[in-house]
Amino acid sequence: MNQVLLVVIDGLSDRPIRKLANLTPLEAAKKPNLNTLAKRGIQGLMHTISPGVRPGSDVAHLSLLSYNPYKYYPGRGPFEAAGLGMDFKVGDLAFRGNFATVSRNLTILNRRAGRIDKTEELVKLLNGIKIDTYQFFLKKGVGHRVAVILRGKNLNEKVTDTDPHFEGKKVLTTRPKISDQNAKKTAKVINQFTKKCYEILDEAPLNKKRRMTGLPPANIILLRGAGKFTKIPSFKEKTGFSSAMIAGGGLYKGIGKFLKMRVLEVKGATGTPETNLKEKVKKALWALSHFDFVFLHIKGTDSLAEDGNYLGKKKFIEKIDKAIKPLLSLKETLIVLTSDHSTSSSLRIHTADPVPLLIVGEEIRTDETVSFDERSASTGRLGHIRGEELMPIIKDQLGRAPLMGA
Amino acid sequence: MNQVLLVVIDGLSDRPIRKLANLTPLEAAKKPNLNTLAKRGIQGLMHTISPGVRPGSDVAHLSLLSYNPYKYYPGRGPFEAAGLGMDFKVGDLAFRGNFATVSRNLTILNRRAGRIDKTEELVKLLNGIKIDTYQFFLKKGVGHRVAVILRGKNLNEKVTDTDPHFEGKKVLTTRPKISDQNAKKTAKVINQFTKKCYEILDEAPLNKKRRMTGLPPANIILLRGAGKFTKIPSFKEKTGFSSAMIAGGGLYKGIGKFLKMRVLEVKGATGTPETNLKEKVKKALWALSHFDFVFLHIKGTDSLAEDGNYLGKKKFIEKIDKAIKPLLSLKETLIVLTSDHSTSSSLRIHTADPVPLLIVGEEIRTDETVSFDERSASTGRLGHIRGEELMPIIKDQLGRAPLMGA
Repeated sequence: MNQVLLVVIDGLSDRPIRKLANLTPLEAAKKPNLNTLAKRGIQGLMHTISPGVRPGSDVAHLSLLSYNPYKYYPGRGPFEAAGLGMDFKVGDLAFRGNFATVSRNLTILNRRAGRIDKTEELVKLLNGIKIDTYQFFLKKGVGHRVAVILRGKNLNEKVTDTDPHFEGKKVLTTRPKISDQNAKKTAKVINQFTKKCYEILDEAPLNKKRRMTGLPPANIILLRGAGKFTKIPSFKEKTGFSSAMIAGGGLYKGIGKFLKMRVLEVKGATGTPETNLKEKVKKALWALSHFDFVFLHIKGTDSLAEDGNYLGKKKFIEKIDKAIKPLLSLKETLIVLTSDHSTSSSLRIHTADPVPLLIVGEEIRTDETVSFDERSASTGRLGHIRGEELMPIIKDQLGRAPLMGA
Repeated sequence: MNQVLLVVIDGLSDRPIRKLANLTPLEAAKKPNLNTLAKRGIQGLMHTISPGVRPGSDVAHLSLLSYNPYKYYPGRGPFEAAGLGMDFKVGDLAFRGNFATVSRNLTILNRRAGRIDKTEELVKLLNGIKIDTYQFFLKKGVGHRVAVILRGKNLNEKVTDTDPHFEGKKVLTTRPKISDQNAKKTAKVINQFTKKCYEILDEAPLNKKRRMTGLPPANIILLRGAGKFTKIPSFKEKTGFSSAMIAGGGLYKGIGKFLKMRVLEVKGATGTPETNLKEKVKKALWALSHFDFVFLHIKGTDSLAEDGNYLGKKKFIEKIDKAIKPLLSLKETLIVLTSDHSTSSSLRIHTADPVPLLIVGEEIRTDETVSFDERSASTGRLGHIRGEELMPIIKDQLGRAPLMGA
């Protein structure tokens, strides 16, 4: 075998649901193709971090790609910025941001500026502005969202959010979370940036137009999730694999870029249940002839579970099953099917329940499981592994693991 | 689900016994109610510390309550003292003590002073005595036992026992186990205390009376198991749960008090096979409507196995099975049944064999096990976990685990 296709179906696994006859959405779904793969391979359960630890998607992905998140997790801001394709340097800080509407005394009137979408003109007004020797870079995200990178010497990410998360509250003053000169200086620069944002945005022609048509002006940027870009080995350096990522959601593309994987664009890949699954699978198959390792991410399952929509989740799994049919004819490819974490449709949150893991390939020690689901996987012969063990196992299947000792 | 009932049956699991047709006492016991719970839940095996590590009850309980014992275990003395309800401060040392009989040159004639029980008068003579700026506090334990707390500045618990553990030997001089000024000073104070004990006790009216009636005088206190009270987060701080403990044995109550759990008194709860199981279960059910987390401890299984009484152990398990019947009708409660360690009825010691772990609750991913016992649990789908992972798993089942990442 020469290459690997890793399919991560986000928040795929769940808990038994009474209204599904005590089955999980995955157990209840009609999924002949996934089951065919189960029959050909070996299954087990995976704790992405460790038993009982409830992972966010960012942390979970780092772990299953072999990056210990306790060591490498930079916070959410850097992932979002990288996901939008922003350039960054080691030492930069990154934030997630919202365009919002504030009154003259910076009380929040509308946290999303009326869900404004066309912010390009506003982003342009602020992008690259300098405060002392520090510089801010902005990039428009989905809707009212924006990513902000702060570049300068000796920045410290231990600073509080400016986003109070509620309307009627005032924009918060950033404060250092620790007693540290650099954190103090960083906070000061961010507060100056917030002030400047208001001055520039409140006067912006676009906002004048919006006021005239009765729309709330996008006259502030609220920041949260400060994180620092730190030195992290590329996926190639860490695993030896050339790699490509196919994903709709910005966060996942960000992880890919962060790890210097090639992030492939697919038309209609949205990271939603309406995503173009067929095109994504097609791109993944194409990528297999160009890269050692292809990562295909599917997001909809997680979002549906977080909405409590277990029936929608079940249906979307059935859609995935149809879309992955071409995988059945793959040759010379190690296929790995798993998830980053469980999402409970009843609690509507990520849970720490382990995820099913299926590995299909020539010379795999197969087991007797005939269905790809939580409880079948729990009887699989791979046993229970941890996320950080997945890549070593994959490399070993290809005969590419390093030898310890002699 | 809103609350948790954790039932720890001490030393429950065992090894197959030839005279029980190669079954363990738990496997051989008739236990329809425990088995009903098994059918409703998921089982696995738990290594309270890690595979091959043979835990004492104190260390095992810390671990399964999510306190890493390598970090938090203060030694046995502090647990015993806390279990007797003694007040303590961070920095105090605590010891387990025996009243014993010595000759004029401090040779031990009777290590338990003829199993004296009424020691209140003697304890009163010594309680609160000062040596330099140091002070000793005593409290009567069961029979000839006594707990001793030493309070003062810069105490170090790395000192040897004064108890030589054998009659005919002399009371030992405490020595520092490490080269440290504080340990040296601590040893000196303890040696002065031992001398003072002899002077005061040998002249005590009670001992004069005992001599006259031919009973051995309780004229010394032998100390062992020095430990220091260190800062430890409360169970509430560590897990977020309000909690109650129901136990007969002093050690377990001590652990509860140590972790600032509410220790509930139950009439007839003795920590022996004659304990009032029904009242304990009744109290546990009452506690579930007042606390998030209720810990019910049952000790008899361990003591019977340590006596080599495997038949008694089997019968006591059958008694437990009857007593826990009300658990079958619990609603909205996560029930966790397990043990702190295995105790081999044939070796008569704790062993490192993993313990069965059963979790019952709504939306649990059930398995096919139909009996609550060692070998059924080993086929359970929870797999093998470690003690420190239990509380995170429990919190996650209730949707109360913190999220790592975003």
